[in-house]
Amino acid sequence: MNGKSSRRKFLKGGAAAAAASAIQSANGTAAAQTEKRSLKDEVAYGERSKYVNSVRVAVNERPAPDEFGLTFHVLSPLQDSVGIVTPSALHFVGTHRGAIVPDISPKDYRFLLHGMVDRPLEFTLDELKRFPSVSRLHFIECLGNKARPDHKTVQQTTGLTSCSEWTGVPLSLLLKEVGVQKGANWVVSEGSEEVKGAGSIPLGKAMDDCIVAYGQNGEAIRPQNGFPVRLIVPGFEGIYNTKWLRRMKVVDQYYMTYNDYGHISADPKVAAFNLQWGPKSIITSPSGGQKLPGPGVYQITGLAWSGGGAVKKVEISTDGGRTWKEAEIRSEVHRMAHTRFGMNWKWDGKECELQSRCTDELGQIQPSREQVAKVFNQPPDYYHNHGIPGTDNAIVPWKIATDGSVRNGIA
Amino acid sequence: MNGKSSRRKFLKGGAAAAAASAIQSANGTAAAQTEKRSLKDEVAYGERSKYVNSVRVAVNERPAPDEFGLTFHVLSPLQDSVGIVTPSALHFVGTHRGAIVPDISPKDYRFLLHGMVDRPLEFTLDELKRFPSVSRLHFIECLGNKARPDHKTVQQTTGLTSCSEWTGVPLSLLLKEVGVQKGANWVVSEGSEEVKGAGSIPLGKAMDDCIVAYGQNGEAIRPQNGFPVRLIVPGFEGIYNTKWLRRMKVVDQYYMTYNDYGHISADPKVAAFNLQWGPKSIITSPSGGQKLPGPGVYQITGLAWSGGGAVKKVEISTDGGRTWKEAEIRSEVHRMAHTRFGMNWKWDGKECELQSRCTDELGQIQPSREQVAKVFNQPPDYYHNHGIPGTDNAIVPWKIATDGSVRNGIA
Repeated sequence: MNGKSSRRKFLKGGAAAAAASAIQSANGTAAAQTEKRSLKDEVAYGERSKYVNSVRVAVNERPAPDEFGLTFHVLSPLQDSVGIVTPSALHFVGTHRGAIVPDISPKDYRFLLHGMVDRPLEFTLDELKRFPSVSRLHFIECLGNKARPDHKTVQQTTGLTSCSEWTGVPLSLLLKEVGVQKGANWVVSEGSEEVKGAGSIPLGKAMDDCIVAYGQNGEAIRPQNGFPVRLIVPGFEGIYNTKWLRRMKVVDQYYMTYNDYGHISADPKVAAFNLQWGPKSIITSPSGGQKLPGPGVYQITGLAWSGGGAVKKVEISTDGGRTWKEAEIRSEVHRMAHTRFGMNWKWDGKECELQSRCTDELGQIQPSREQVAKVFNQPPDYYHNHGIPGTDNAIVPWKIATDGSVRNGIA
Repeated sequence: MNGKSSRRKFLKGGAAAAAASAIQSANGTAAAQTEKRSLKDEVAYGERSKYVNSVRVAVNERPAPDEFGLTFHVLSPLQDSVGIVTPSALHFVGTHRGAIVPDISPKDYRFLLHGMVDRPLEFTLDELKRFPSVSRLHFIECLGNKARPDHKTVQQTTGLTSCSEWTGVPLSLLLKEVGVQKGANWVVSEGSEEVKGAGSIPLGKAMDDCIVAYGQNGEAIRPQNGFPVRLIVPGFEGIYNTKWLRRMKVVDQYYMTYNDYGHISADPKVAAFNLQWGPKSIITSPSGGQKLPGPGVYQITGLAWSGGGAVKKVEISTDGGRTWKEAEIRSEVHRMAHTRFGMNWKWDGKECELQSRCTDELGQIQPSREQVAKVFNQPPDYYHNHGIPGTDNAIVPWKIATDGSVRNGIA
């Protein structure tokens, strides 16, 4: 802001402070890249700016991925996100079943659809592409995407969710092609990774809106997200969206698989299956690790989504959940997709707590942490840990101190 | 397809031929990359598969871009596209005003809004981000995106169009902030490149749906597409979507600028301004340079869009425009955005000509080449060339020979 103006309308709440005052991020500063690309390279493929250094980070509480590890959990930098599309290079990754991404040549790829069907078929990638395609924006979220008290940033609390335009064959078309037999009720899918991840989905879901996908954001799916083919099960926990999909078997009952580790517990109240995500939202800015430079006008912005369909409403509280105000929806709204919300907010410099709450098209309302804990029969400070299953769509609060610093509200 | 099946429903038209038979592309084969990335790199940023080598190419009829050239026109690989999002790295680039992409640090960036306003203001990037944002999918298309007889592929005939989710501040908010004065009618925008590209848009459009954008597909705009800020003028010719936006001036009348080179002609019938794209579509597969391996069932698929709003209908002809059949819409439909269409098609092995035709929400119908030539008072074999201005949304036909080869139908 230079001296050309003596008045401001929109930013009047904190014009002076605003002058020097973007929200400061804990996520490092841009380092100029020294390597110069050839003009031939510039023509072929346009890289991002040397000033942009947004990156994914590994999940802290899991072993760092290495050649011998069996885990590869990588968090998407939600604090840097704009709009609703996640850049494919920054899409979260979650797998417990092999740190090594399978190397599958498109020419060698085969997808087997069998089980309780009239004519089992094996499809090449080219054959899949000769079916009618569908392209839709959907989020995928790992069932382990839960805020813990030791998380500092929104990337850590909530970075295991992403949203892409997925392109592929409706699974229903392939199931019609093979002819599902009477008595079939579930479909088990299996990936190509080392430990052969597998998951069971109800036949009704399989016939509804699932996609055998080969495209992501206008290009081939990236290796870490299932190249050349993955399953998209819109709104279901990430673990059902089988990557490096190699076969699906139509069966008569639920099949217990390795993937069920997250759902099994001695406590029947905890053991309930959670196939579909509830309504969820997260404020991405201001968020943990950032700092407001002083009182003034800010944008509260974030993402909302639900496994139950379209986001209908997002509310924001700036007083720790006592009062709520409806936020603006600032993107396209798609079913089972991230939705961008925002609200103008004037910070008075006092301590406060920000929360967001999503209501979906079914009328489901995102719960508080206390409500979630009650469902899972846990103490009020409940949070997910290994051995305590169940997805978590609880509100994540951000506390703002008088110096403008933002920190995890459950810490 | 292996021996497991004796029957096929969907692919029954050409099961035997289909077995070995994806459409073959002229665009090279995958070359394995030998360089291995560290696991740290794999965590930070997920690159595309070594088997994927889709790239942009330079426009043939312009000088190859080099350090001294004044042109940088790069075509998006539409033949490889799926869905409606263009990967940011593969977005087309078009500029006549400097081959060197301006190197603008986000910290140094300033945007000046001045002219017939109450209080001219200069904004930093951080200040722009403190306004409410909007995110929408829009196509951008260069006014020079026209098929010529010497073009071999769809990348050459039509590759100067792309579609992204753009995020930024509604221009209307900024104009309200500065206070537009009475008598103002046009807004002139200027970029930061060497020759200072500039363009004039009507104030009514500026107050309607334009975006001062800093985000593209969920991340910062890439350098070749205007980092850190560009103007989005939905549905208008690409040249009005000023990249590296440095100022906008509110004025009382149309300003003639360097960018008008494409619109000026001695012939008044040709000189008419063409701000907004008409309805347009292109079949991306099968398309020029590809080869159908034999008779059988194929997908005809492509993209449709219009500057006049949403795509309402796409029709496909397989007999050179004599008869038409309505295609399926196979993506989300957004206003002024690419829209994916498709149709199942059984090729009988005879010579034929494929065409697609878009109708938009205004009822405008994409014209034939003959109709476009008539508007521009040109012979029926009219095509755009330097010195012959006017955008071209004519139907691009693909001819298929008995050997399955596909070639430009206007060649």
